[in-house]
Amino acid sequence: MNGAQALIRTLVDAGVNVCFANPGTSEMHFVAALDQVPEMRGVLCLFEGVATGAADGYARISGRPAATLLHLGPGLGNGFANLHNARRAQVPLINVVGDHASHHKQYDAPLESDIEALAWACSGWVRRSAGPKSVATDAADAVAAASSGRGRIATLILPADACWLEATGPVAPRPASPAPAVDAVRVAELAARLRASQPALMLLGGRSLRERGLRAAARVAAATGARLLGETFPARLERGAGLPPLDRLAYLAEHAQAQLAGLRLLVAIDAAAPVSFFAYPGKASTLSPADCRVELVGGDAEDPVAVLEALAAALGAPTDVPVAPARVPPRPSGTLNAETLAQGIAALLPANTIVVDEANTSGVYLPAYTAGAPRHDWLALTGGSIGIGLPLAVGAALAKPDARVLCLQADGSAMYTPQALWTMARERLDVTTVILANRSYAILNLELMRVGAGAGGAQARDMLDLTRPTLDFVALAQGMGVTASRATNCEELCTQLERSFATRGPSLIEAVLPPLQMPG
Amino acid sequence: MNGAQALIRTLVDAGVNVCFANPGTSEMHFVAALDQVPEMRGVLCLFEGVATGAADGYARISGRPAATLLHLGPGLGNGFANLHNARRAQVPLINVVGDHASHHKQYDAPLESDIEALAWACSGWVRRSAGPKSVATDAADAVAAASSGRGRIATLILPADACWLEATGPVAPRPASPAPAVDAVRVAELAARLRASQPALMLLGGRSLRERGLRAAARVAAATGARLLGETFPARLERGAGLPPLDRLAYLAEHAQAQLAGLRLLVAIDAAAPVSFFAYPGKASTLSPADCRVELVGGDAEDPVAVLEALAAALGAPTDVPVAPARVPPRPSGTLNAETLAQGIAALLPANTIVVDEANTSGVYLPAYTAGAPRHDWLALTGGSIGIGLPLAVGAALAKPDARVLCLQADGSAMYTPQALWTMARERLDVTTVILANRSYAILNLELMRVGAGAGGAQARDMLDLTRPTLDFVALAQGMGVTASRATNCEELCTQLERSFATRGPSLIEAVLPPLQMPG
Repeated sequence: MNGAQALIRTLVDAGVNVCFANPGTSEMHFVAALDQVPEMRGVLCLFEGVATGAADGYARISGRPAATLLHLGPGLGNGFANLHNARRAQVPLINVVGDHASHHKQYDAPLESDIEALAWACSGWVRRSAGPKSVATDAADAVAAASSGRGRIATLILPADACWLEATGPVAPRPASPAPAVDAVRVAELAARLRASQPALMLLGGRSLRERGLRAAARVAAATGARLLGETFPARLERGAGLPPLDRLAYLAEHAQAQLAGLRLLVAIDAAAPVSFFAYPGKASTLSPADCRVELVGGDAEDPVAVLEALAAALGAPTDVPVAPARVPPRPSGTLNAETLAQGIAALLPANTIVVDEANTSGVYLPAYTAGAPRHDWLALTGGSIGIGLPLAVGAALAKPDARVLCLQADGSAMYTPQALWTMARERLDVTTVILANRSYAILNLELMRVGAGAGGAQARDMLDLTRPTLDFVALAQGMGVTASRATNCEELCTQLERSFATRGPSLIEAVLPPLQMPG
Repeated sequence: MNGAQALIRTLVDAGVNVCFANPGTSEMHFVAALDQVPEMRGVLCLFEGVATGAADGYARISGRPAATLLHLGPGLGNGFANLHNARRAQVPLINVVGDHASHHKQYDAPLESDIEALAWACSGWVRRSAGPKSVATDAADAVAAASSGRGRIATLILPADACWLEATGPVAPRPASPAPAVDAVRVAELAARLRASQPALMLLGGRSLRERGLRAAARVAAATGARLLGETFPARLERGAGLPPLDRLAYLAEHAQAQLAGLRLLVAIDAAAPVSFFAYPGKASTLSPADCRVELVGGDAEDPVAVLEALAAALGAPTDVPVAPARVPPRPSGTLNAETLAQGIAALLPANTIVVDEANTSGVYLPAYTAGAPRHDWLALTGGSIGIGLPLAVGAALAKPDARVLCLQADGSAMYTPQALWTMARERLDVTTVILANRSYAILNLELMRVGAGAGGAQARDMLDLTRPTLDFVALAQGMGVTASRATNCEELCTQLERSFATRGPSLIEAVLPPLQMPG
């Protein structure tokens, strides 16, 4: 058994059985070893940003890490942006980055670069495998590191000779670290603060956004009068009819400040204290009032759901909480725009759909219209680096083959990782992609004004324009083997959505939207 | 005048007047300032790897740096792979990486990451601008750093507030550093070694691959009997009828070792001592014989062309050297394969074409067939990170608007940065792209065997296969606004090449090739 086989066998034994791969020469022994360990499913991606984004989507839905297989520093570089998003999503994820054989490093061959520098900039754990005798141990440690606490990115740098030389065999998975115990004193203190401080708000994020956390938080809210908000960009939010409803903190700082105005207490549950996404001249970075106390719950040392449940019990909270009623809007007709698009999606959304949301400006009406739709998951852009929607959909679909994935993808953002469509076709994934084609970097038109840079002259506006030439997503999708169609009105959108939802395999709908209406 | 305006004006005054941009919110003041400094041409790219690869191509042809405009760490990450190639090409290049405003960094907002770590891994000079008062100085220093010696990547990290606050105005360009003087003792020593050591070889790279260097090297060869070879992957090689011919060092280590066998002296002119691209079990990393003396000429401290010319003079070399005769093969007919493709291109190549070569395995016949074609430039993949061909063509075409660019692009590699086609359409660039569609990562099928991993089982081979589904590059190109056609035989290829060469603006030809014939 060589190092590659020992590595893959160890990963599989620890429950890591999907590898999103974009390999090169230094990874050829890893690739060859896939045939010796058939339990590992290799999923070929044409670009590394697809592989890393797919691993994120897989982890968000399965709760388990997938592996990526990347080719030296440039491969990790290509995967960096979506690893940044995955780091912000705090998912478990394992990068295997092939490198030159140990003895070859000294020669500064053309592909040599500082892999460690890149790895540390996106990972919580980094190790260079010392050789074939340790590579299985390294793999077991990587899985344990990725799976500890909230979840993190573990990057294992794998010299080619650690793969091809004889190894000592796989090692057993590390025992799972015990769940952190709930601190009763801490719970009592939080209960007292929530009772004493009004108005108060609980900002829910991370692991608290699944059904158990939402129900416990809703009980606490009912017992204390505290309001609930979800973080702006959740990694995975369970919502829809029958679940406690949850508004989210607004993206625009001025709107978020209005939501938080007057608060005396903000308890952030597995979420960061709210700060502005970007800075703006003369505007504050922190969004809660200056005299508002901020308490942070969660992170690696606390199980936020267990804390919420203990809190509900300590407060003697009612067990019954209000839930969103089933409420589906009528099927829209006529002009297609951001609002009727949201209406159409809400009208037709199948139960248990996984919604991937990189809709950006075109998505403003989606939360309200879908609030009473059949229960579904909502996956957002956690790290602000656009170009994760399509890859996230690949990973989510692989993690839950019996679910429909609906990928709501803004057009400009789609062009960072369009190669994901090919992997959807190759793996015959049940993904419905809707391209929200307003043919502009609409968010930047808005931001250009918000940062005080004015509406921009001809050159500036030209830098935000996607109409010269117009992107044809139907052609792009068909070029990668995905069935595609264009919707220019509500009837076409609804018909095409229904057809896609009823058909196995991927399809794409280019929804042609009017340009963003600028305020003022 | 704000910081952004002072920065751009300083760049323009120093001769940097093209900016390949993929901006975000933190760069909106830079974008707005483009209207105040209209001499700076903003070229929008839909993905950062297109911007960085285009800046490389621009520098290779113009000899001057272009700027890129990138969005925080993830933007730099997306640009990393082609910056790696540009670093290996040793071109001047300036990255402007927008960052959060200085006071906003502390809040760890979603897009926060370690930009410096990424920047140092691909740059020779990195600076974070301290604010609006220093930003113009920073820009002038960046241009000077990029342009010194052989050329390097300078990365300026630009906090948003350094752009939007009032600045002190542009600063004048730094004086150019004087060219290094030729060391007569060094030249005498090299001349003596070349006379005394037989067999000897001069390995030409970097700046020595333009006409002056080639002529001087050919004179030295004629005077000493030393052989000449070019480095495997030149940043820019001038070649064709009327220029001294130059074979190149082979990519495969065993072939390169055969080329270098028996040598007693190897003089590497602006090139690295030859090493294997990758390591292989049981094979050596260095390619020249163990008892061969290696002399390195060039780098930042020496002008390699001046050294070659001084050497020719010291040796009393003849001024007349053999040049490649004009020799164009007949137009091919019938079956299209790697050889007839090379023949067709050689038969039709217009004079002064810039050939971008990311042909990989499908390009093996190109050097021989085009050796007597009308004079042209040859731009290769310098750093081994595939996905630079299309972006390089964008930059080269912008640098020399009166030339035709012929981009020979392998299909698998094309899928890393296909977005470059959109910029070709937008800027109406005279680029003829030929996709070499063998529908496989053919190089990896070869490497799988060469690393001793065998031919691979079903899973392994599946990881190298691009037929499930087949990529339709005609649809992909049309989807991005580029005229496209498919060639399945030589007649179609030749007709489509002629039409493209005769038509302004970009077009793409998908040349359908048989799968790579595996040795054995």
